[in-house]
Amino acid sequence: MIFASDNWAGADERIVEALAEQARLGGPAYGGDALTKAVVDRFSEVFGREVAVFFVGTGTAANALGISAYGRPGGIVFGHAQAHINVDEANALEFLGGVKIVALEGEGGKLAPGGLAEAIAAYPEQGFHHGQPVAVSITQATELGQVYLPEEISAIASVAKRRGLALHMDGARFAGAVSSLGLPPAEVTWKAGVDVLSFGGTKNGCLAAEAVIFFNPADARDFGFMRQRIGHAFSKAWFVAAQFSAYFDNDRWLTLAGQANAQAKRLAEGIRSCDEARLALEPAANEVLAVLGAGLDKRLKAAGAVYHPWSSAGLPAASLPGPEEVLVRLVTSFRTSDAEVEQLLALLGAG
Amino acid sequence: MIFASDNWAGADERIVEALAEQARLGGPAYGGDALTKAVVDRFSEVFGREVAVFFVGTGTAANALGISAYGRPGGIVFGHAQAHINVDEANALEFLGGVKIVALEGEGGKLAPGGLAEAIAAYPEQGFHHGQPVAVSITQATELGQVYLPEEISAIASVAKRRGLALHMDGARFAGAVSSLGLPPAEVTWKAGVDVLSFGGTKNGCLAAEAVIFFNPADARDFGFMRQRIGHAFSKAWFVAAQFSAYFDNDRWLTLAGQANAQAKRLAEGIRSCDEARLALEPAANEVLAVLGAGLDKRLKAAGAVYHPWSSAGLPAASLPGPEEVLVRLVTSFRTSDAEVEQLLALLGAG
Amino acid sequence: MIFASDNWAGADERIVEALAEQARLGGPAYGGDALTKAVVDRFSEVFGREVAVFFVGTGTAANALGISAYGRPGGIVFGHAQAHINVDEANALEFLGGVKIVALEGEGGKLAPGGLAEAIAAYPEQGFHHGQPVAVSITQATELGQVYLPEEISAIASVAKRRGLALHMDGARFAGAVSSLGLPPAEVTWKAGVDVLSFGGTKNGCLAAEAVIFFNPADARDFGFMRQRIGHAFSKAWFVAAQFSAYFDNDRWLTLAGQANAQAKRLAEGIRSCDEARLALEPAANEVLAVLGAGLDKRLKAAGAVYHPWSSAGLPAASLPGPEEVLVRLVTSFRTSDAEVEQLLALLGAG
Amino acid sequence: MIFASDNWAGADERIVEALAEQARLGGPAYGGDALTKAVVDRFSEVFGREVAVFFVGTGTAANALGISAYGRPGGIVFGHAQAHINVDEANALEFLGGVKIVALEGEGGKLAPGGLAEAIAAYPEQGFHHGQPVAVSITQATELGQVYLPEEISAIASVAKRRGLALHMDGARFAGAVSSLGLPPAEVTWKAGVDVLSFGGTKNGCLAAEAVIFFNPADARDFGFMRQRIGHAFSKAWFVAAQFSAYFDNDRWLTLAGQANAQAKRLAEGIRSCDEARLALEPAANEVLAVLGAGLDKRLKAAGAVYHPWSSAGLPAASLPGPEEVLVRLVTSFRTSDAEVEQLLALLGAG
Repeated sequence: MIFASDNWAGADERIVEALAEQARLGGPAYGGDALTKAVVDRFSEVFGREVAVFFVGTGTAANALGISAYGRPGGIVFGHAQAHINVDEANALEFLGGVKIVALEGEGGKLAPGGLAEAIAAYPEQGFHHGQPVAVSITQATELGQVYLPEEISAIASVAKRRGLALHMDGARFAGAVSSLGLPPAEVTWKAGVDVLSFGGTKNGCLAAEAVIFFNPADARDFGFMRQRIGHAFSKAWFVAAQFSAYFDNDRWLTLAGQANAQAKRLAEGIRSCDEARLALEPAANEVLAVLGAGLDKRLKAAGAVYHPWSSAGLPAASLPGPEEVLVRLVTSFRTSDAEVEQLLALLGAG
Repeated sequence: MIFASDNWAGADERIVEALAEQARLGGPAYGGDALTKAVVDRFSEVFGREVAVFFVGTGTAANALGISAYGRPGGIVFGHAQAHINVDEANALEFLGGVKIVALEGEGGKLAPGGLAEAIAAYPEQGFHHGQPVAVSITQATELGQVYLPEEISAIASVAKRRGLALHMDGARFAGAVSSLGLPPAEVTWKAGVDVLSFGGTKNGCLAAEAVIFFNPADARDFGFMRQRIGHAFSKAWFVAAQFSAYFDNDRWLTLAGQANAQAKRLAEGIRSCDEARLALEPAANEVLAVLGAGLDKRLKAAGAVYHPWSSAGLPAASLPGPEEVLVRLVTSFRTSDAEVEQLLALLGAG
Repeated sequence: MIFASDNWAGADERIVEALAEQARLGGPAYGGDALTKAVVDRFSEVFGREVAVFFVGTGTAANALGISAYGRPGGIVFGHAQAHINVDEANALEFLGGVKIVALEGEGGKLAPGGLAEAIAAYPEQGFHHGQPVAVSITQATELGQVYLPEEISAIASVAKRRGLALHMDGARFAGAVSSLGLPPAEVTWKAGVDVLSFGGTKNGCLAAEAVIFFNPADARDFGFMRQRIGHAFSKAWFVAAQFSAYFDNDRWLTLAGQANAQAKRLAEGIRSCDEARLALEPAANEVLAVLGAGLDKRLKAAGAVYHPWSSAGLPAASLPGPEEVLVRLVTSFRTSDAEVEQLLALLGAG
Repeated sequence: MIFASDNWAGADERIVEALAEQARLGGPAYGGDALTKAVVDRFSEVFGREVAVFFVGTGTAANALGISAYGRPGGIVFGHAQAHINVDEANALEFLGGVKIVALEGEGGKLAPGGLAEAIAAYPEQGFHHGQPVAVSITQATELGQVYLPEEISAIASVAKRRGLALHMDGARFAGAVSSLGLPPAEVTWKAGVDVLSFGGTKNGCLAAEAVIFFNPADARDFGFMRQRIGHAFSKAWFVAAQFSAYFDNDRWLTLAGQANAQAKRLAEGIRSCDEARLALEPAANEVLAVLGAGLDKRLKAAGAVYHPWSSAGLPAASLPGPEEVLVRLVTSFRTSDAEVEQLLALLGAG
């Protein structure tokens, strides 16, 4: 019963097979191979628009580089306090771009247009002391398992554009969000005002496959140099391309994400009907934040369930754990089996 | 007939199999899995000493991070003018560490202890204008296909240590050098004074497997943060570990490198006995620098041979191409087949 | 009636005279002159301890460099949300050191030990994602005109030391604080646990004279390089030394600061007895934060008073301006004349 | 007899007086004062064109910031091996901009258009490994006391422009060059293709007055932020403005530089007619590189002459010192007196 993180899962069999097959073939280095070219084109199809695509090794690199492409001296980036860029990337943005992240609150890890507008307004257009706003970053699905609707993204984009800021989306769990919404990828990205997307495959069945997607290819003018100078230009680029190729075949990416989401939904239902547990937030993708009674927590662990306690930062007051309770995060993945879920549900006394 | 680069080869079948197997298992993220731990221990065995091991995505990252670990404000790094760190990494070291690379000449891509000592001496111990020497970097095998003997490394190390500089080795083709020398890895690294090694697997049968090896683990104090802030901490670290595991099994890494070296030797012999071609340098590993007559060059290409023209920088005067000649680099790999070599030899009119 | 800022004042006559005299003499460059050496020694006397002293051009440089001297990869610095380092330095710390500033609240611009301890505790000792705490920065006097008592500094230092963090003090208005407290400089710096001080002269009668003071000279090992690589090593270093020489002669620095503080006190008394105005905070040095009725504000400006509206961030609820009120900052300086103060007091209808 | 450096001189009396006068007045901070505005306009007059002017504290800051304004990821800057940016700035450019300096040889510290073109051509327009050329930097007068003619600058500019590179001029000794050439400043700057100039006053009679001059003001879009984030925005900006104001009054800058140049010319004549000394280069401004017999060197020092031995790097073979000789640099300044020169000439046995 592994609910620790979606990056504990191995990799999807078909993705591994595609990789193995391409490994037998090899090909020109640094993306000069036919498969890499085909996959780049596939991204344009997936998003219904010509995009510029750059493979990188991790989501942290995708975020830091994608946002830095819009950096300027004294650049200010607005993001959620619980965002990965703010708490998990060891100052990548600050170090690589001299950027300051202005951390905002917002329910469920989502930015609110009003709060964002206020934060931006605190930076006057004149002067040189305060730095200059350059970008807004949102996470889809959020670090707290929530999903932005297209109109929510548009509202944020509209606030950003008024001041000429770029809109970045951290899509480490983009597939889960798209699957949850049941909408074309374009609807929650460029059509809603997103300029650059960190497109993640690793948490959803790949081994290591991340990409930075620019919806206005001209924005990527210097990106090749930016990527190389932090060592993210893979010589055997086909090793990423092969993963993405299988990922997109027959919408496998959405199938995998759908499986993870469905298991999260089952967990949520079990928690909802359990006396000793409650949902801290209604999950929209594959992350379930729940408050467990201390006794239940102990029993689950004793039975072999693996999951992490979680910070209550960013949660509504009603969701905070009480004195004999603990807040935990349960993450499902494409690999989460019915047996694992059923075993947990049984322990919850649900169903 | 692909002699363009060793990174055009795909990946070794056993390495891919090991990867596929581990992909089925998955495991804790960020190196918490058993395989990653075992592989880290394996590195200590391979080098006959406890080492600190950090996986990264590319050789460029390994070099830039490994050297930066010894950085100081105003840091000066001494390296060969043709070194990868100087000409191929889009200023990674300068950008990440504010380092200046002092580029030195030296036959076959090798630094000469005398020239190095002179270059270091130009930086006075007092004052703050000129920056402070912090490290020396050498490449094994060199970018021009040469291999340092242990005593040559010791001589360089001794010059470096006199001023307290760290010695870094770019081992993108380390396996080829070790196979060529037939010596234990320890003899050409820490026993000869190397402090940190960029250990490359990608050019020798892996898909993407590079590591930074610190021979004094205490030097790696901040390395986890340094690696994360440029996005090289893979969540599914086992994807690198699985490659290295198969790489070391039964000394497969040396077998693969030995195959590449042997084919390079056959090419060299063919060139030596060809009227229209000559060796620019005697190859010691898997890179053959040759001067071809323009007619031969045309015939080879027409017959389907793939290789790159090469810069004559760093070559002895006698090796420079004449008016109707072209300098080329032919690289063999673990995948180079006897058929490919024989076809080329036939075109050379050799054998 | 200039109450806009203490950096609007010119420079003290004796300081200018000392500068002019030294300008006639000249001397060896980069601090090799006798005056610079004497002034460095004078700093040790002033602080009752051997200190390392480095002149720089601005307070921003002093802060960014002084803190960066304690930087490490992924470094986290804790400071007040209204601190100059957080809102006025165009990301100097982020850019120069890849540092993230964690902005804390605290009354009157002062950090509270409890809140600081909590914020530090949020950064676990293990792992590499979150960065590593390296320093705490406080401002003396604060940006809101408050002054830390020695025991308050000690309490903060004690929280910092428990985790091995350095304690930096932004002393752009250090003279004002020392004058206000009537204590030896040592009591509010190294004896209370401060490691490094940005010692400002510019706001208190100098033209441009700032210094970074290390209370443990060994901490300054690389500082000469750090300063040079952002261009703050003045060739004619005596131009700063001459200012500081006169600044310290006969405790002129404290006389000048005392004058500014006294005028601020008079302003505060006037505001206290005025019906249309109230103090937002009780001033401890030369900055008076006041809430003015809109009508009074208009009358003052019409009469020629120059001052800035101010952000209410960091103020207690009771101090916030109401609907027909405006929050303003009135700053006095060594140059503020009795006539200016009396004219303002008259307009306030006070006294 | 001080010939150590032109930054050993104090400051010109009228410049100090202007400073003292403005210090009595004070004024709005950060360049909002009338004098600063007037001086900015004066720069436009001096150069016969609207320019953007930014004061900074040192020539190192001027160079690093001025060039960085044209930086791009992986940026390559071409400059002379003996240039201040390459050997005296503790990696400022590398640190602040991630730039690599490609160091070129050239007689007397001057770049040769041919060598420059060749060096640029080594960087292909395609690809991302090698970085991208962004700027060329020349020094006027050079570090070896030579002066570029307008047509020499134009030739370099033409090579630079062909590849879209910016042309930067390090004018730490710009006044000396203009005085030596007897040409309007425009002729050796923007009319010859210079984009950005580090305009130095410190070595020619100011205390600390340097400026970055953009000939296309639009290039300075982000410069205010760039300057602030390394702490070079002086709050009392009038302290620089006052110096420049007196500097330009009655062409005082050219008078001062002319005096220094004239004394250098007298020294050169003395050396030319001395049996134990010879000129290493014919001086064009205020730096005289000379080869002295070891005995003469000893006698000069014993008599109280102060000067530095100098590196022979960049000198023509005929100028290199022999076994019993030493290469020295003698620098004159606006302060160098007839008496000092005559004393030295007497010791040379000249005249």
